Amino acid sequence: MKPYFHFLTPSGNSSVVQGPPYHYGADFITVYFRSPPEKLQYFLPDPLKVSDGSAVCYVSDFVCTISDDDSDAPYSDPAQSTYHEAAVGIKCTYKGNPGVYYPFMWVDRDWSLVRGWSLGYAKKLADDIHLTRLHKYIPKVPYYGIGTKLSGYCSRHGSRILSVSLEITRKGSSKDLQSAPSVYARRYFPSNMEGQDSVNELVEIQKGNAQLGEEIWYGTGKIDFFPSRNEEVSMIDPVEPMYGLAYQFGFTNYGSKVLEKYAKS
Amino acid sequence: MKPYFHFLTPSGNSSVVQGPPYHYGADFITVYFRSPPEKLQYFLPDPLKVSDGSAVCYVSDFVCTISDDDSDAPYSDPAQSTYHEAAVGIKCTYKGNPGVYYPFMWVDRDWSLVRGWSLGYAKKLADDIHLTRLHKYIPKVPYYGIGTKLSGYCSRHGSRILSVSLEITRKGSSKDLQSAPSVYARRYFPSNMEGQDSVNELVEIQKGNAQLGEEIWYGTGKIDFFPSRNEEVSMIDPVEPMYGLAYQFGFTNYGSKVLEKYAKS
Amino acid sequence: MKPYFHFLTPSGNSSVVQGPPYHYGADFITVYFRSPPEKLQYFLPDPLKVSDGSAVCYVSDFVCTISDDDSDAPYSDPAQSTYHEAAVGIKCTYKGNPGVYYPFMWVDRDWSLVRGWSLGYAKKLADDIHLTRLHKYIPKVPYYGIGTKLSGYCSRHGSRILSVSLEITRKGSSKDLQSAPSVYARRYFPSNMEGQDSVNELVEIQKGNAQLGEEIWYGTGKIDFFPSRNEEVSMIDPVEPMYGLAYQFGFTNYGSKVLEKYAKS
Amino acid sequence: MKPYFHFLTPSGNSSVVQGPPYHYGADFITVYFRSPPEKLQYFLPDPLKVSDGSAVCYVSDFVCTISDDDSDAPYSDPAQSTYHEAAVGIKCTYKGNPGVYYPFMWVDRDWSLVRGWSLGYAKKLADDIHLTRLHKYIPKVPYYGIGTKLSGYCSRHGSRILSVSLEITRKGSSKDLQSAPSVYARRYFPSNMEGQDSVNELVEIQKGNAQLGEEIWYGTGKIDFFPSRNEEVSMIDPVEPMYGLAYQFGFTNYGSKVLEKYAKS
Repeated sequence: MKPYFHFLTPSGNSSVVQGPPYHYGADFITVYFRSPPEKLQYFLPDPLKVSDGSAVCYVSDFVCTISDDDSDAPYSDPAQSTYHEAAVGIKCTYKGNPGVYYPFMWVDRDWSLVRGWSLGYAKKLADDIHLTRLHKYIPKVPYYGIGTKLSGYCSRHGSRILSVSLEITRKGSSKDLQSAPSVYARRYFPSNMEGQDSVNELVEIQKGNAQLGEEIWYGTGKIDFFPSRNEEVSMIDPVEPMYGLAYQFGFTNYGSKVLEKYAKS
Repeated sequence: MKPYFHFLTPSGNSSVVQGPPYHYGADFITVYFRSPPEKLQYFLPDPLKVSDGSAVCYVSDFVCTISDDDSDAPYSDPAQSTYHEAAVGIKCTYKGNPGVYYPFMWVDRDWSLVRGWSLGYAKKLADDIHLTRLHKYIPKVPYYGIGTKLSGYCSRHGSRILSVSLEITRKGSSKDLQSAPSVYARRYFPSNMEGQDSVNELVEIQKGNAQLGEEIWYGTGKIDFFPSRNEEVSMIDPVEPMYGLAYQFGFTNYGSKVLEKYAKS
Repeated sequence: MKPYFHFLTPSGNSSVVQGPPYHYGADFITVYFRSPPEKLQYFLPDPLKVSDGSAVCYVSDFVCTISDDDSDAPYSDPAQSTYHEAAVGIKCTYKGNPGVYYPFMWVDRDWSLVRGWSLGYAKKLADDIHLTRLHKYIPKVPYYGIGTKLSGYCSRHGSRILSVSLEITRKGSSKDLQSAPSVYARRYFPSNMEGQDSVNELVEIQKGNAQLGEEIWYGTGKIDFFPSRNEEVSMIDPVEPMYGLAYQFGFTNYGSKVLEKYAKS
Repeated sequence: MKPYFHFLTPSGNSSVVQGPPYHYGADFITVYFRSPPEKLQYFLPDPLKVSDGSAVCYVSDFVCTISDDDSDAPYSDPAQSTYHEAAVGIKCTYKGNPGVYYPFMWVDRDWSLVRGWSLGYAKKLADDIHLTRLHKYIPKVPYYGIGTKLSGYCSRHGSRILSVSLEITRKGSSKDLQSAPSVYARRYFPSNMEGQDSVNELVEIQKGNAQLGEEIWYGTGKIDFFPSRNEEVSMIDPVEPMYGLAYQFGFTNYGSKVLEKYAKS
């Protein structure tokens, strides 16, 4: 293997994560919502333009690969193969092309953090991301169905940052998913002294292999954003939830195509 | 609600866990093994007798309820509804009646710890219990099937205590499960000064509502126990793995029936 | 060693904690406050009587021993020798004898939890307890002195439960410490089925070896209690902070003397 | 504030960390050791040359600042002001100039991770870094002095990676510290697709404000490196410990001066 990131040893075996492609399968509790467009625009890098003020918040439980060259990792190092993620995404356009940009994404593993950064996802580490899980064989507790309730939260620095919840009202379908044609992101690495290189690029994540799970559940969604010392997600309040979904989704990230290079800091 | 444990407030709303019954649904990676019977006997409280030297080790991912009076908890407090558990169980008999006794059980939530203690399970808190998870929709990674490999581990105080792994060789069936007719356990609460009450009881866990998942996978199992400063599980080495299973199981714990009261310490 | 708690092996070496005495040295950020006496009385078990409505909240960083028979533990198993604790204590009397009762105490280690329970402390596990630390040799940041500000928080189940903060206004002295002559507590272990023993005792913690650190800092205190699904501390609002202290304190807990045995549940 | 890293909002208030300078005060348990020079050379990037085969391993407890523009952070967000760090450093030369390079550094906070990366430190996230702490006022337990024993460990992905320990034999002095005139490091940010910028620089950390604590303790050191799936530190075995120190140290990092730019990947 080639080292992709620290620790940069000749063998590549200590690299916190390997290079793409990465394959993912995830369970989502997703709530679509509207916020004042100017509040959303504030969190979009130029020249992304907010769409209609619609946005998305999810909490999720991920299974993933680390590298196509290390297909044994989920078995031989289970700590490298699952993580949780919470995020807020804003519907927007780049030169008229519709997509989504995630200004806020939290995960609970370092390798997911750096993998995200190298792709362009704006990630920080959560203390805890937790979702209601349902189990097919637990007695007395309903499995997915009308009336079932689910929720999830993300906390950091000892404070809750966001909660989402969903009360299922009907079976959903693929039409209920507001899939974005493009995912815009920002590859960034700062300089702290003259003479250093740095990275500051608007990119489009290169995705593929989309596989939507057969069971999709639709319902009433609820979102709470909380103020916190090192977070600003609550600045997009007031939030008007549209509806929520519970579903499973698989996909591949191949890398990031550069759209624009920003002036370096 | 009635308070079941600390914090013992009049409302019961601060109780770390409520009273039984508790309902559970879990995903298990289980490996059956043999150890020298006298090594297993060492960890059995009188008058339990080791059976044939067979035993079990599992890592698992649990969904559960906290109380029949608080059916909303998995939704309104997801942190109260899932946990991970690793354990070692020894096949044994009580007055000739076959069962299993778990001298070592680790979990990752305080409420699971105290709930276990009140039922009689010997639990300590793990730093981390982690299992390979498979996802139906992740591209390029096989789901359950022949050749699939899974593993899990438990760590505490910064050291790995045990690892189990499984390579699936065929579909399994309910006959592959070595279900114990009885689960023996020990309710214990110490005294530290004359005049105090204490608890020291051999009990049988009162179980019901067993529901075995349809998909059972059978394969080659592997177990590693590691020495650690505050642990003794590695004393049951050498371990001879028999086979392993991946399956889902649901059940209810109603409480614990006293079999014997030990002299109090 | 004798086993004191699970895992109850013959050697005692797997016991999550050993029996008392326990020795402690701790750094405290403490804020004294007043709340409506009837709100405090609500959280006191009979026959404790609230005093004048004064109470205390602290966050703290503890160093401790596990057993007089295992003096090597802090060296050979550092995970067994430090923990953080946050607590709320209510000034009260037992048959006219003044003391303090802590209805709410959170810690971040399992062995501290069970040790506390066996002594009678009402403990639950925190996600995170974090305090401002000052360092004598960090450049540009003031060490303890007038104007220095400190804070700490406790979170559980992904939510902040409490924050305390202190702005130092002067050197303090031992007279500023509102030491309670007695610490009242409740040893409790529930039954969940007829025929089981249980424990339900009002006790007085047996303390000794009190050593107050030379440096005591006095200042303006602030307390925030937050509502949370499985917590009730915010029910004692409104809180009127009196003053705060930063200090170091060492002591020994020898066990618990039974004052009353409650009817068993 | 200016955003220094994700989340890159206009206000800079969501940035996981701010730009330098950073001020630090830390407590170290340090053991100096020798390993075969060619094994150490393996982990040095060109053109660094291993010195005499001497190296250092430490575990440490850090207090720090986040930004000179946010001096209130340690008070208002304590989670942003302390972390633990374990590291292995190799004595080496750059064009004949002696220094140290740390191929392996683990921390327990995301902001320490990214701050380190932007400076050039090779950091990954630990599950747990834990040190023996001594407390001046704990009864029956000796404070720093001849015969006192201390240890620390670092774990990741559920496995212990390293342990260091120290038994104090005498008071030490500043002469016992093997301070490196220069700290070499590597600023690195990968590309994953053609057209992307990337960063790959050999740098020298710009340090200042060194303040060595008055109390330095010298003794017998011990180091254990353990194999782990995503780590290679144990490849530098056999390790021959020279001696160990316990001390406090403060310093400032101002940024990183570029020494060489590597070909980009």
